[in-house]
This record gives sequence, structure tokens and C-alpha cells, in this order.
Amino acid sequence: MNDLKNDLLLRALKGEELSRPPVWMMRQAGRYLPDYIKLRQKYDFFTRVQTPELATEITLQPVDQVGVDAAIIFSDILVIPQAMGMVVTLEEGKGPLLPEVIKNKADIDALIMDDTEARLDYVMKALTLTKQELNGRVPLIGFAGAPWTLLCYMVEGKGSKTFDKAKQFCFTQPELAHTLLQKITDVTIKYLKAQAKAGADLVQVFDSWSGMLSPADFKIFSQPYLVQIADAVSADVPVILFPKGSWYAFPDLSKTSAAGLGVDWSMTPQMARQMTNNSITLQGNFDPSKLLAPIPQIKKEVKEMIDAFGTTRYIANLGHGILPNVPVDHAKAFVDAVKEYQPSVKESAVVA
Amino acid sequence: MNDLKNDLLLRALKGEELSRPPVWMMRQAGRYLPDYIKLRQKYDFFTRVQTPELATEITLQPVDQVGVDAAIIFSDILVIPQAMGMVVTLEEGKGPLLPEVIKNKADIDALIMDDTEARLDYVMKALTLTKQELNGRVPLIGFAGAPWTLLCYMVEGKGSKTFDKAKQFCFTQPELAHTLLQKITDVTIKYLKAQAKAGADLVQVFDSWSGMLSPADFKIFSQPYLVQIADAVSADVPVILFPKGSWYAFPDLSKTSAAGLGVDWSMTPQMARQMTNNSITLQGNFDPSKLLAPIPQIKKEVKEMIDAFGTTRYIANLGHGILPNVPVDHAKAFVDAVKEYQPSVKESAVVA
Repeated sequence: MNDLKNDLLLRALKGEELSRPPVWMMRQAGRYLPDYIKLRQKYDFFTRVQTPELATEITLQPVDQVGVDAAIIFSDILVIPQAMGMVVTLEEGKGPLLPEVIKNKADIDALIMDDTEARLDYVMKALTLTKQELNGRVPLIGFAGAPWTLLCYMVEGKGSKTFDKAKQFCFTQPELAHTLLQKITDVTIKYLKAQAKAGADLVQVFDSWSGMLSPADFKIFSQPYLVQIADAVSADVPVILFPKGSWYAFPDLSKTSAAGLGVDWSMTPQMARQMTNNSITLQGNFDPSKLLAPIPQIKKEVKEMIDAFGTTRYIANLGHGILPNVPVDHAKAFVDAVKEYQPSVKESAVVA
Repeated sequence: MNDLKNDLLLRALKGEELSRPPVWMMRQAGRYLPDYIKLRQKYDFFTRVQTPELATEITLQPVDQVGVDAAIIFSDILVIPQAMGMVVTLEEGKGPLLPEVIKNKADIDALIMDDTEARLDYVMKALTLTKQELNGRVPLIGFAGAPWTLLCYMVEGKGSKTFDKAKQFCFTQPELAHTLLQKITDVTIKYLKAQAKAGADLVQVFDSWSGMLSPADFKIFSQPYLVQIADAVSADVPVILFPKGSWYAFPDLSKTSAAGLGVDWSMTPQMARQMTNNSITLQGNFDPSKLLAPIPQIKKEVKEMIDAFGTTRYIANLGHGILPNVPVDHAKAFVDAVKEYQPSVKESAVVA
């Protein structure tokens, strides 16, 4: 493994004191970058995901062009349902479609549990190639979807405002739901461990739809599986959990073996620090729409965000994925503002 | 005005001690009821809204068929943009469309501020007719959309996962945004006062998209206008504010002149009580998808919810609108479970 020239992200996760936080952006390898759009015009989504050279090229774009402190491998959370034998298609700009959804025990029994690493060999190749191309410039992040979020897609078959089919499945057949969640968890643990072996320096678990669950149901259908993943994978690499919308779970999740917690923009940095008793590295939480504001305002609000989170145990990021209509110079302003961060001079301090 | 035979809802808002809470369901007059679907096949959406006899018939259906403790007038939050001169269409099952969105000062200057009551005369007629038909059986709820949520539609032109056009408008042209929000607020206050005069016993303000805003931006773009409305309309009838997704605003909103706060299912009753210092009537917060669970489970969880909220300063409701695919007997089980509520016998109590 290469020694990292910029290991800010890993040091933030270890809780080392830093003078400025590391910065990256969820979905940073994606639709707001003109070079990405060019590739999109030539290759369909799963070709881009499944071709290591393309995935690597896309992964490196924001490192080269926006100057983030980490690369995150270009892939998709739905490669796991695919590896488990389900058909997943994606219509550009319309979201994923799983034509044959999970309905009963037979569907769950038919899911493929073996050869996860081999079936997702293209991800491992992309990680290894990217790691090589990065040549230690910044750490490489691997990722997976959380079991609850993957269940949502595997049962609902597509995106939804309410995921009520998925929830109905869980509420009416909880034993089947837990069988399915455990299968997804087992495969995900193998997948993330393989990613670490292939070159990922850390991994993030995206629970994009956990906020659909009440606090009580989150404890039943999401939390136990996040904890299993954090426990198993933390032995290999640091794990960041991002339970979007589930602020209520922060006290519990801060006590797991996860190294970091992703914060969306529905809470203030102060609330997040308080709920986690300042005991875990937090990542977030700039409103992605705020990148559409004028650049001076972006810079001002980034500074306020870092002032509030502090520079230690903190990773600057958005509160969710970057929007496709964000101008590249606005994304760059976000990253630059973090890199230029100087703490506010306190009134009591002596000015030299 | 008729004396109310069932005034539980109004007593809950006053903070009177009750042995069981009142119950109603957001969107109770709607798509899960077979009799509503029959009317939908004969009349398009705005015909149903704008014909007082139809709106009244739809409003009464859940009172007669499900046994709720309140009627809420069948209408739509987008009647305000219509009254202000904007075109609003609705494709059944696809959501609203505003083909000419607000883009600049001229668009805002062109909005109609006068004759709100006359322009929405059909709502007033529906309220008066419904009040008459109810004959005091239960209270009648009027409603409006919150200024922030109406701005979302007026600027974005349609539903959105992120409302980033609306947010961009606010972040890049905050002065214009405030001018627009104030205009909506002024018209909404006139509208809600007219609803009270026409027969509404209380009103609810739906801030369906407030959760899109960070806590800091909620204080800028939503809260001041909610407070204005609560202050102005509370002189006439009690006001319930429902800022969906904005749990962070509960401490502030509990100190306004609003009589009640709507709670979504992303927090526990205990969290909501704590954040409001037990000082305001709370309404909610059953997960709408949970009505797809088996009836015994619905009944068990309703009882747990009431145990947690308590029977005083509490209105049993869903955490958002009822889903179209909920069986009527499940909706009725929800309502019945509230009506049958008996507090849990404490272990220390003597059993007779």
C-alpha cells in the first residue's frame, strides 16, 4: 500500500487534532462535472460502473478538478442486489428499476449469497486501479448501501416518496424482513471487507432511506444491521455510517464501533455534537442547495459551519449528494473555503 | 353557531384534562375512501374543490364512515396561488403543475392581493354548508399552506425531491423571497380569518416542505411567517402549525401563539414533549405506513402512542397524510383504538 501524502481524512476519523478539517462531497464523482457528462453520453450507467478504467477515470475527476481531500469510488449501492441475483436497470435521470421484486420466502431463498467478491470483481478492479492512479495523493473511500435502504429498493422495486410497499412488507412479515436484512448484511460485510482488501482506505454505509422509519422502527429494521456491519468491517478499515434523516439515532450510533457519523442539514452542528456527546467524528452537513447561492455566501457559511463543528473530529462535506445543477466553480468554492479555513479570532485574543 | 356535541378537539387545544384524546387523520377526506373515488371518477380535482356541495359531501364522508372527532374541509393548499392569479393544474395521481412560475420582481408585483375572500368564496360556501350539515356533531377544521411551502410550489412550479429551484431563488434573491413570503402571509391571514367567519372552528397551517430547510434557514424563510399567521389568526380561532420535518423548530414554535403543533413520525412522543417543555398541545404522529400493518398491531401501537403522549394536551393523528392504499377498516381500527383507549393499569395499582 502507498503511504498517503494527504491523510487528513484518516486522521480526522482517529480524532487527531487538526488545524482544518478534510473535505469531500457526496456524489462528487458525478453529474455536475462536464467531463462526467461527456462519458455519460458515450457509455450507459452500468457500463460506467462495471468498466474499471471508466470508474477510475470518473473517480479521479473531482480529485484533479475540484481538489477534494478524498476520492470515493464511482459505483452504485444497487450492485449488491445485482450480485444477489436481482435485475437492476437504470433509466438516466429517472432512477433505478428492479422489475422482479422480493415478495415472499421463495424470493429470499433464491438470493445468491456466494461469490460476492468474484461477482463484484469489477468494483475490486476499479478500487485497485484507482488506488494505483491516486499514488497516495488522497485516501480512497469504498461504500455500500445500508441493509434497510437496499431492502427498500429490493421490495419496492423503484424509488418512492414513502416506500410504503417496503414498509408494509416489514410490518406484515417481520420475520421475512429480518431474514432478508440479515442476508443483505452478510453479503455487504463480505463486500466491504473485499473493498478494503482491494484498496479502500475507509468505507461509508449509506442509509439513504432510514429517515422513513420512526425511531422505534429504526431500532428494529435498520440499527442492528448497521451495528453488525460497523463491528465486522471496523476490524479492517474505519467505517462511516450515514443514516439520512435519522438524527434521533445519533446517541445510539455514536456508541457503536463506527469511526464516523454522517450528518444531514436538518440539524445544527451543535445539535449533532450534543447528541453524540462529542465522542465521534462527524461528517457533513452543508445544505446541497446552498451551493447554488453566490460564492461569497457559500464561503461565509462554510466558515460558520467549521466554527460550529470545530476542526477536530470533523470532516467537511455536504448533508447529502451534490446536485447536478451546481456550477463547478461553486463546488470548488466549497472545497476551497474548507482548505482556507482560519479560526475566527476571538475577541479576547491578542492581535499580533 | 351550533353548540358542539363533541368538542374534544377544542378542549384538547385548550389543555383541558381528558380521559382520551380526540382523533382525526390528515387527508382523511380522500383517496382511500371508495365513495371519494366514485366522485373522483365523475368530477376533476378542482371541480370537487370548487363546488361547495361536492366539497361538503367529501368532507363529511370520514365523519360518517370512519367516526373521526373532527371534519377537515376538503380543499387544497394551492387555492391561494390561484387566488393570487397563478394558474394551477393538477393531473390526477401526478401532483400539481404551475406552468408560469415566479421568477422576478415583476412576477411578484403582478400577484393579486385583493378580494381574497371573494375569490375563494367557494371555500367559504363549502365551510358554511359543511358546518350546517355537521349540525354540531364534531368541530370543523379549516386550513392553508404555510408561506414557505406555497413559495416552493410558486417558484418551483411542481413537486420536487429537493425544491432546489425554490431554495436557489431564496438564497440568491433573499429580498424578493421575503417580499413574496410576506405577500403570501398577508393573503393567508385574510383567508384563514374568512374561514373562521364562514364556520371553521379551528385552522391548521401545513408547512409540508419546511423540513427541506436547515434550522438556520427555517428561522429566516419559514418561522417568521408562521408566527405572523399564528398571532393574527389566533384572535379568531385556535391555530395548529404542522412544520413537517422541522423537529428542530419545536422549542421555538411551542412559545408562539399557536394552540397546537403537528408532529411527524420521525420523533418519539417523549422527544416531542421534551422539546416543547410539555407546554403545548401536540398532534400526531402515527407512521401513515403503519396503517398497512395487521389491525391488532395497529391497535397495540396506537395504545402505546397515547400512553407516551398522555391523554391531555394531545390530539391523536397520523404523522402525515393517510396513504391511498390503506384499507378503510384499517383506518377505522386506528380511530377505534383511540376511542377505546384505556390507560395501562400500573403495576402498583389495585385491581378491582
